[in-house]
Amino acid sequence: MSWLPSLKTETPEDGYELAIKLSRMAVKKTQPDDEVRSRLRVDYANNADSLTMASHVVAVNFQTVAAANGYWL
Amino acid sequence: MSWLPSLKTETPEDGYELAIKLSRMAVKKTQPDDEVRSRLRVDYANNADSLTMASHVVAVNFQTVAAANGYWL
Amino acid sequence: MSWLPSLKTETPEDGYELAIKLSRMAVKKTQPDDEVRSRLRVDYANNADSLTMASHVVAVNFQTVAAANGYWL
Amino acid sequence: MSWLPSLKTETPEDGYELAIKLSRMAVKKTQPDDEVRSRLRVDYANNADSLTMASHVVAVNFQTVAAANGYWL
Amino acid sequence: MSWLPSLKTETPEDGYELAIKLSRMAVKKTQPDDEVRSRLRVDYANNADSLTMASHVVAVNFQTVAAANGYWL
Amino acid sequence: MSWLPSLKTETPEDGYELAIKLSRMAVKKTQPDDEVRSRLRVDYANNADSLTMASHVVAVNFQTVAAANGYWL
Repeated sequence: MSWLPSLKTETPEDGYELAIKLSRMAVKKTQPDDEVRSRLRVDYANNADSLTMASHVVAVNFQTVAAANGYWL
Repeated sequence: MSWLPSLKTETPEDGYELAIKLSRMAVKKTQPDDEVRSRLRVDYANNADSLTMASHVVAVNFQTVAAANGYWL
Repeated sequence: MSWLPSLKTETPEDGYELAIKLSRMAVKKTQPDDEVRSRLRVDYANNADSLTMASHVVAVNFQTVAAANGYWL
Repeated sequence: MSWLPSLKTETPEDGYELAIKLSRMAVKKTQPDDEVRSRLRVDYANNADSLTMASHVVAVNFQTVAAANGYWL
Repeated sequence: MSWLPSLKTETPEDGYELAIKLSRMAVKKTQPDDEVRSRLRVDYANNADSLTMASHVVAVNFQTVAAANGYWL
Repeated sequence: MSWLPSLKTETPEDGYELAIKLSRMAVKKTQPDDEVRSRLRVDYANNADSLTMASHVVAVNFQTVAAANGYWL
């Protein structure tokens, strides 16, 4: 089963969750070690700029997902 | 009730507020602890580059919301 | 009166001004204290990278405004 | 005379020059002092990351100008 | 054989892989030395912000690939 | 002869090369001194984040070139 069978989602909220998934997958593919990622998460979850940077990536992916869904109109 | 029932808003100003909401939600989902986020807010609200970075994320999300609303024409 | 009644502007130059307004509004909503923002402005107005970052946000917002205006064609 | 009468240009190269102009104008509007900007230019023109950041802003503005011109097809 | 014969992919997941390939190719063309890139990978694979930055680039390229594929609808 | 006669390319790979050219041209126009740019290249070609930033700019320009070519479909 693919982790990304489709960009279509039922609702905008589901689309936002998919955008988060897309954002994290690129990290996972660069750093596949779960333990390392967990450790790094502590770092960036407590740093304001790191959180803003993460939110930026979600925003870019949400653009893609929203367009794919015709903005759920 | 979903926190994101739709990308449609009545006005551009409401759309801008939604863009801010979208920007903050990604932060909240990475750092769910309200107290930590409040503490971090003090940091970045007093740093020029942090504020610019935050404004950047809002701008990206506003692109999405504006497109979803046909630019409120 | 809304601070953002419409994304439509008469001219490209007015659209650029609106993009600047959109960029600053996100900062204002995160840091509502006028005095703090004035102090921070001194910092980033004298730092090359900060100015480039600010210009980047304007560019993203200008994309939105330009699209909303059909590029003033 | 407006500094931005139109987003239309004769050629792609002219469009690229306009993108540079758009990128610099946001800096100028934040830091209107010519002397300060000249001094800052020395800084960022000798720093690789600063140059990359500047190129990034031009790229975003070039997207806008290129779309406005129907990619000069 | 071209390393980029087409932007079309069978599935969204394949499109995501292509976005990663596009992101890495720009790095490879700037730093062609495999050994140097391997060494640098150790650095950024263990730094949260570096991973977020990498994920950002993938997100931008995924926008392009997704649009090229009509979002696989 | 213009350095940018057109955004059209024969193939996706050629389009990617054009995106690299567009990314470098903005740097060249800010720092015209070939020797300085060569020196700076040593810096950023050995820094992971600098390479990621450079790849980001290529990704943005590739969006433009790909759209101009109708994604080579």
